[in-house]
Amino acid sequence: MKVAVLGAGMVGRAIAIDLSNEHEVAAFDLNATNLEEIKKTGANVSVASADLSRVEEYGNLLAPFDIVVTAVPGFMGYKTLEAVIQAGKDVVDISFFPENALELETLAFRKEVTAITDCGVSPGMSNLILGRYNEEMKIDSFECYVGGLPVERKPPFQYKASFSPLDVIQEYLRPARQIEEGTIVTRPAMSEKEIVWFEEAGELEAFNTDGLRSLLFTLPHIPRMKEKTLRYPGHIDIIIAMQQAGFFDTAPLRINEADISPLDFTTRLLVDQWKLGPGEEEFTVMKVIIKGEGKTIEYHLFDRYDNATQTTSMARTTGYTCNAAVNLIANKLFNEKGIFPPELIGKNENCFEFVLEYLRSRNVIWRKNETAKTK
Amino acid sequence: MKVAVLGAGMVGRAIAIDLSNEHEVAAFDLNATNLEEIKKTGANVSVASADLSRVEEYGNLLAPFDIVVTAVPGFMGYKTLEAVIQAGKDVVDISFFPENALELETLAFRKEVTAITDCGVSPGMSNLILGRYNEEMKIDSFECYVGGLPVERKPPFQYKASFSPLDVIQEYLRPARQIEEGTIVTRPAMSEKEIVWFEEAGELEAFNTDGLRSLLFTLPHIPRMKEKTLRYPGHIDIIIAMQQAGFFDTAPLRINEADISPLDFTTRLLVDQWKLGPGEEEFTVMKVIIKGEGKTIEYHLFDRYDNATQTTSMARTTGYTCNAAVNLIANKLFNEKGIFPPELIGKNENCFEFVLEYLRSRNVIWRKNETAKTK
Repeated sequence: MKVAVLGAGMVGRAIAIDLSNEHEVAAFDLNATNLEEIKKTGANVSVASADLSRVEEYGNLLAPFDIVVTAVPGFMGYKTLEAVIQAGKDVVDISFFPENALELETLAFRKEVTAITDCGVSPGMSNLILGRYNEEMKIDSFECYVGGLPVERKPPFQYKASFSPLDVIQEYLRPARQIEEGTIVTRPAMSEKEIVWFEEAGELEAFNTDGLRSLLFTLPHIPRMKEKTLRYPGHIDIIIAMQQAGFFDTAPLRINEADISPLDFTTRLLVDQWKLGPGEEEFTVMKVIIKGEGKTIEYHLFDRYDNATQTTSMARTTGYTCNAAVNLIANKLFNEKGIFPPELIGKNENCFEFVLEYLRSRNVIWRKNETAKTK
Repeated sequence: MKVAVLGAGMVGRAIAIDLSNEHEVAAFDLNATNLEEIKKTGANVSVASADLSRVEEYGNLLAPFDIVVTAVPGFMGYKTLEAVIQAGKDVVDISFFPENALELETLAFRKEVTAITDCGVSPGMSNLILGRYNEEMKIDSFECYVGGLPVERKPPFQYKASFSPLDVIQEYLRPARQIEEGTIVTRPAMSEKEIVWFEEAGELEAFNTDGLRSLLFTLPHIPRMKEKTLRYPGHIDIIIAMQQAGFFDTAPLRINEADISPLDFTTRLLVDQWKLGPGEEEFTVMKVIIKGEGKTIEYHLFDRYDNATQTTSMARTTGYTCNAAVNLIANKLFNEKGIFPPELIGKNENCFEFVLEYLRSRNVIWRKNETAKTK
């Protein structure tokens, strides 16, 4: 198959390189350095400079391709996905945009396009797993804990962003929607801190973030659903303190004859510090807990930076899930038309097993644990 | 006596009003609001606008007065004190400037001036107490814990500055000099955190600040001396985190076409939040611990905001100590010529008792506790 990868950032590059083992792949980005990084690996990926904000050119740009991957920054994700669907191409998206992808359902159906959205690790794998078990049992609750963390715990933040630092800051500020007693409730971002222990990472701190996304609308009958982000203990207290102290306020202050918002200033300081440097080791840790019918199903992931290929764990866990979905389409294992967040893919047991196996073959191992409730 | 009070901020005002019970007092300040605040109380204090940075005019300005109090902001304190001595006036200073007042010794001696410096609560009372016991016993160690804190613990900082917020920020950034095994050592500001329990204030957090000042030079034979600042637990962790994250860096960043240093920006945000509002209740808590000859002497202070006169505790504890020294000079209880930090006043038992009694009469109560070392 001919696959176009739009966006060649840290994750987009890993996607293109991995897909090139089985497909004819072209990667597009405006940033020459990103494209150069792909070439340096010697992977069989053709690269081309493209201003992906010019969505009116997608018809020509994408004409030669069978399947498209959208891996652009969140702020331009929705427009990009819409334009790919408009161009009539099957697509897998991992852009993590704030808008609701389900609003493109009519367009996708009309264009006879298969669009698999939010198909990374979280959102992504968490949705896929929930979608599978929703077919098997009556679910009482769903919890997802996920974090991408650096191995080195450098004070004060003990954090590096394995995706855009700007998106991380936005994630810290956006109120978190959850399902409680069957109703959508909104919690403050970063609220309900708790310490959670992980075998490989030790004690981490979890707090509310707005990670449920499509699940709020596709599986609203599940009475309790929440998503929490994981960081080293202490990290989020600093962010909360800074928020309380006004460091994320958006109203500009007049200072040295310039108007600057605290958010702009703080972002400037944090983005520099949170940028994951080349070769900096990180890992992804994640736990999905599904309860119902007297039992508890846990899916657990711990994945490390790959030193040999210098691929971040976040790129591996996100990108290879995306690629599993590309292959679902390529192999015609999934060919329904419309918008499909991964919980709708997971309904199909073959698709679910295919994705897990695809990840396993790349050493991204999901461990399952099932326990009966003790009375 | 005729007393001039230079600076009519929160502390200077309390000094002028208190002194007016026994003396003919004039208060000088450039800030009309500060002078207005004095007039509103109905105290018998004459007020006059004066640009106190114009030190060349001090000769005329101070000619009518017998004694001068300098209560200006730290950054202009040294020049102010020097000019007062140059004008030949006895003086008590509480400006808390970074320079070493002892360098004015020759000038003060030549001008036959009695200058009592750093004569507030800390520095001030801590020095006085140490100076007294240094006459009585061989001291092994001196520790001083001091904090001015708001009653309301508003997150994230749980802090309001009972003196200039700018001076507080400087105090957090200046390395702390201590005496260890008879040698001056320098510790990072905010280091060596510990929790200390106070009967009236509960658990507070203490950390190193550069508060020993003149003691480093006047009593260098004491083998161990340290000063620590008290805050509600958690406060200083946020400051430390912000410092580590670069929020106090002085190198300007280019942002929105302006050059702004993180320190300037952060200061701007903090000064607004740390300003003690009118009527906001605060307290001063302090503990001086002197050990030697098998015993431990503790002096302990807990003083609250005075609702009746709307006088802050910091103004009471600092200002009334200053006024006790003014009366030491006025009553000729102390008339040596030169620069005298309070440890040199405390050598004289009558002076020491006079200051404690002066404070007691204003309900600023120092409690003493002496214990023999248990073997």
